[in-house]
Amino acid sequence: MENRTEISDLGEFGLIDHLTKNFETYNVSTIETVGDDAAVMDHFGKQTVMTTDLLIEGIHFDLMYTPLKHLGYKSVIVNLSDVYAMNAQPTQITVSLGITNRFSVEALSEFYEGVYAACEKYKVDLVGGDTSASKKGFIISVTAIGEVAPDQYIKRSTAKKGDLICVSGDLGGAFLGLTLLEREKKIYMENPKVQPDLEGEDYIVGRILKPEARKDIIEFFEKQQLHPTAMMDVSDGVSSEVLHLCKKAGLGCKVYEDKLPINEATRQAAFKFGLDPTVCALNGGEDYELIFTIRQEDHDKIVLNEEISVIGYMTDLEEGCKFLTKGGNTFDITAQGWKAF
Amino acid sequence: MENRTEISDLGEFGLIDHLTKNFETYNVSTIETVGDDAAVMDHFGKQTVMTTDLLIEGIHFDLMYTPLKHLGYKSVIVNLSDVYAMNAQPTQITVSLGITNRFSVEALSEFYEGVYAACEKYKVDLVGGDTSASKKGFIISVTAIGEVAPDQYIKRSTAKKGDLICVSGDLGGAFLGLTLLEREKKIYMENPKVQPDLEGEDYIVGRILKPEARKDIIEFFEKQQLHPTAMMDVSDGVSSEVLHLCKKAGLGCKVYEDKLPINEATRQAAFKFGLDPTVCALNGGEDYELIFTIRQEDHDKIVLNEEISVIGYMTDLEEGCKFLTKGGNTFDITAQGWKAF
Repeated sequence: MENRTEISDLGEFGLIDHLTKNFETYNVSTIETVGDDAAVMDHFGKQTVMTTDLLIEGIHFDLMYTPLKHLGYKSVIVNLSDVYAMNAQPTQITVSLGITNRFSVEALSEFYEGVYAACEKYKVDLVGGDTSASKKGFIISVTAIGEVAPDQYIKRSTAKKGDLICVSGDLGGAFLGLTLLEREKKIYMENPKVQPDLEGEDYIVGRILKPEARKDIIEFFEKQQLHPTAMMDVSDGVSSEVLHLCKKAGLGCKVYEDKLPINEATRQAAFKFGLDPTVCALNGGEDYELIFTIRQEDHDKIVLNEEISVIGYMTDLEEGCKFLTKGGNTFDITAQGWKAF
Repeated sequence: MENRTEISDLGEFGLIDHLTKNFETYNVSTIETVGDDAAVMDHFGKQTVMTTDLLIEGIHFDLMYTPLKHLGYKSVIVNLSDVYAMNAQPTQITVSLGITNRFSVEALSEFYEGVYAACEKYKVDLVGGDTSASKKGFIISVTAIGEVAPDQYIKRSTAKKGDLICVSGDLGGAFLGLTLLEREKKIYMENPKVQPDLEGEDYIVGRILKPEARKDIIEFFEKQQLHPTAMMDVSDGVSSEVLHLCKKAGLGCKVYEDKLPINEATRQAAFKFGLDPTVCALNGGEDYELIFTIRQEDHDKIVLNEEISVIGYMTDLEEGCKFLTKGGNTFDITAQGWKAF
């Protein structure tokens, strides 16, 4: 190997593109593969989606402030969120763990309590997994599969010019919850006698430690007979996801600052930390909301749902990806999201 | 948490039983869950199986003597083996990786070359995955799904008294390949100028570094219209798997030393290391052969297949699990397999 390309030169999506570009498929049942929230397979009338996530201690979570039960719950949720982002209903999951010998059975049981709580709430079945030793750190790998009626799954790439860009729920809370927990950890490390001060911060702490997946939004679509033109979940941050929707569709967009849904608790927390709530909402990540595009004529179908906000619309590629501030300024949207390498 | 139970007190199967004992399922499509090689789901006429394995550097592989291409290949194979062990045909896989920054894109490409080679050989499709940073060590999580005609999947638990116990291929080779590689590593660590001496050991080294999954055996069953009464793959070692088949069925067994299939290269390597080939065959693990039971009246269907050996038969529970040596002695079979904790 004479050449050495750093992974950071490519980024996650570049890396995946690079590694999968020449791959062909063999099964007629394989409909969609790498590059979306989940794969799609044709299974005799209905279609199956499949998605997987790897969570690694020290990268994706810190056991110092993450209760194991919450971690088990969240490990399931992040996968279900990907299934919903395909407009599918999750049905089964597998959970594989790599565990060090510092874990007791009781600790693992707590983790599984969280897994089961998520399974119960979202009516999915834990159907398997693999338990292994790990030399260092707790490793969690979850795979979820789900069902969708034929060709009703929604890709990231199919937005059209003029479509409205919508998000569910509100943004930035998870990032501020994480910021708070990191601050309290730092204080504790410096002085273990100081008790963490999380009072009044239930909302943002809940957003990072116990996120939910937007099953309700998918059910709302079905009830309203609304078929978004494109969809993905918000895991890296809305900026990053918007750019992804635009790039995949070969379009530009306009997103409006005053349309970004930000919870009052998130806004207050941002001010307390001296952060701009808008920046937190755009780049925060881990909100596990849905971002989707709809035809303009479908606007009436969503207008009464308080859990859905229209934040902008898709434009021609030439117009670029623009963010319009409350003050009337226009900026290029840049992704501050996934920077794990 | 006042109680602390060490994971080693339970073992892998005990741990899984403990963690999953009170879990109920929600989807009518969920047929079989935790406790077999793969889960089974009913998908509109055919059934889907799903299995997952986690491979962790320093626990499951050593990059010092494992070429990345072989590791990619093997990561897929160990999962396909679980799908075949259900009497199913694998169709899709996902591959998730946790990688440290010592990995270059070229190194990862080598890994994926192996993944693709396995996909091509076994005609399965890579449909997704997740790539993440890892703080320490290379982490690989593969999930495979496959198809099986309704109710043609084969469980571990359904052997009957009198059934013949069969294994595919030969046993112990992977363990001796690993022993050889570990010896050469030790020599190299002590004196880096000494080149590894693997001459003439292609067979055993191939068994550990580039195992195959027994697609041919599943196809043979179909051709012969043979339906084994129970089946699993040999990953931990035949002793461990035989005990598992017996325990799940509530039966005993007799296994004959002179019936154990051992390749001549494996036998020679064992002698060279001063090891008993029989012990290597019984307890070695990682052979990825299939062990299955058939009705006695089906014996004629397998007798001409040189890749299948009858090694014993199932007995009443009261007779215990017995190993009969060439010298005429009888021992209780004990599991020396999975001891990762």
